[in-house]
Amino acid sequence: MNQIIETIMNHRSIRKFSDKPLTNDQIKTIVESAHRASSSSNVMAYSIIGVSDQEVKDKLHAISGHDHVKTNGHLLIFCADLHRIEQLDEVERSEAFQENLESTEQFIVGTIDAALAAQNAAVAAESLGLGICYLGSLRNDIEAFNDVLKAPSHVVPLFGLAIGHPREIPDIKPRMPLQAIYHENEYIPFEKQKHYIQEYDQTMKDYYESRNSNNKQETWTEQINQKYQKPTRMDVGPFVKSKNLNKR
Amino acid sequence: MNQIIETIMNHRSIRKFSDKPLTNDQIKTIVESAHRASSSSNVMAYSIIGVSDQEVKDKLHAISGHDHVKTNGHLLIFCADLHRIEQLDEVERSEAFQENLESTEQFIVGTIDAALAAQNAAVAAESLGLGICYLGSLRNDIEAFNDVLKAPSHVVPLFGLAIGHPREIPDIKPRMPLQAIYHENEYIPFEKQKHYIQEYDQTMKDYYESRNSNNKQETWTEQINQKYQKPTRMDVGPFVKSKNLNKR
Repeated sequence: MNQIIETIMNHRSIRKFSDKPLTNDQIKTIVESAHRASSSSNVMAYSIIGVSDQEVKDKLHAISGHDHVKTNGHLLIFCADLHRIEQLDEVERSEAFQENLESTEQFIVGTIDAALAAQNAAVAAESLGLGICYLGSLRNDIEAFNDVLKAPSHVVPLFGLAIGHPREIPDIKPRMPLQAIYHENEYIPFEKQKHYIQEYDQTMKDYYESRNSNNKQETWTEQINQKYQKPTRMDVGPFVKSKNLNKR
Repeated sequence: MNQIIETIMNHRSIRKFSDKPLTNDQIKTIVESAHRASSSSNVMAYSIIGVSDQEVKDKLHAISGHDHVKTNGHLLIFCADLHRIEQLDEVERSEAFQENLESTEQFIVGTIDAALAAQNAAVAAESLGLGICYLGSLRNDIEAFNDVLKAPSHVVPLFGLAIGHPREIPDIKPRMPLQAIYHENEYIPFEKQKHYIQEYDQTMKDYYESRNSNNKQETWTEQINQKYQKPTRMDVGPFVKSKNLNKR
């Protein structure tokens, strides 16, 4: 196993950081790593907003509710960004141009571009001995999330990546057996995934029971059921459309 | 610079592979790396379909048009997948449950989960000395792409990742200056990004002129203008909705 595979396999989300800021060199290395990820047709339909200002972190913390949004070494926000293209002086503002920008296809492109860059940043940070945690919780109030960062039309802030010096190293969380996730040559019917999901339910129950902190009795299926029984972030769809993205 | 940063910085897309298949060990390492990426609330709203069957590759090649879809060492397809959750026996099929599954929020979750996993796979493959290329071109006909893989409701095949033994190592393509992509504490107004885009236009023109193969005279802005003047993949939006995703 080489160092890279080892780093990847060793991933766990870190939710307690010291407040020691990353050095400029560390930030540079992480952001340049993000920047080297593949981008669909070299469009680079994403932006990264690095948050070092404690006031901005505190505002974002009020949205997310997680302590690691305000206490970390650095915070990166990843956005789908078609604004840069929309604003170019030299493009012809045809009907087709507008239709493309506002399509679901281009919103997918921006979302994937942002996520590929983010995962490079995550792996790079972990390779430097730092911890990371993704923050979808910033979408708890996507309008406020957007306003804090002053993102214009055709930009959707998607998620954060908190980076820092870990104050604790939790266990690696077990994943769904690979046999349910990885299919060969065609999609495996659900009936054939079922067995592995049941196996995972037992694994997660055992894992939660044996955990040192925050132990509980819950299967994965029970967690999913609970999570999906309350309409959550239903304003994200209309918000994205208000940004003139994902409209058709 | 550690090995991981070096691998990430050294990335270039490979579009010519030998037909030597990856070993089972290589596939296992790459797919397990994908599987270790973060997943929103541990929902794992994605699936990976590994394509080794030449007939399936040929069908996908007919959609994408790129030779590296049929000639590679292995081909991975990444899907946003809410089907697994939708099918669970033990969940309560409430109105809220359905609303959540069909929301833009959950489609974003599935797309990001898939992309994070993919980028881990890409970095892992490159760390093993293999080359990779992302394939958004499979969305040229998303209905056909889906049908080849027999993906059910609540699953959207998003893109491919061709992996293999490189038959050529192209130059690293210059990226937009980081100053346009990376913002601090709030979104940089376009007016302040403009200078870097002009700089990049010149860089890309020089790069294309100096290239050994396929050299041309074109700025990034000209490429973008050309790309967006024809409505492209406008069926992706309706297709995703037909899968009962991204509906509200």
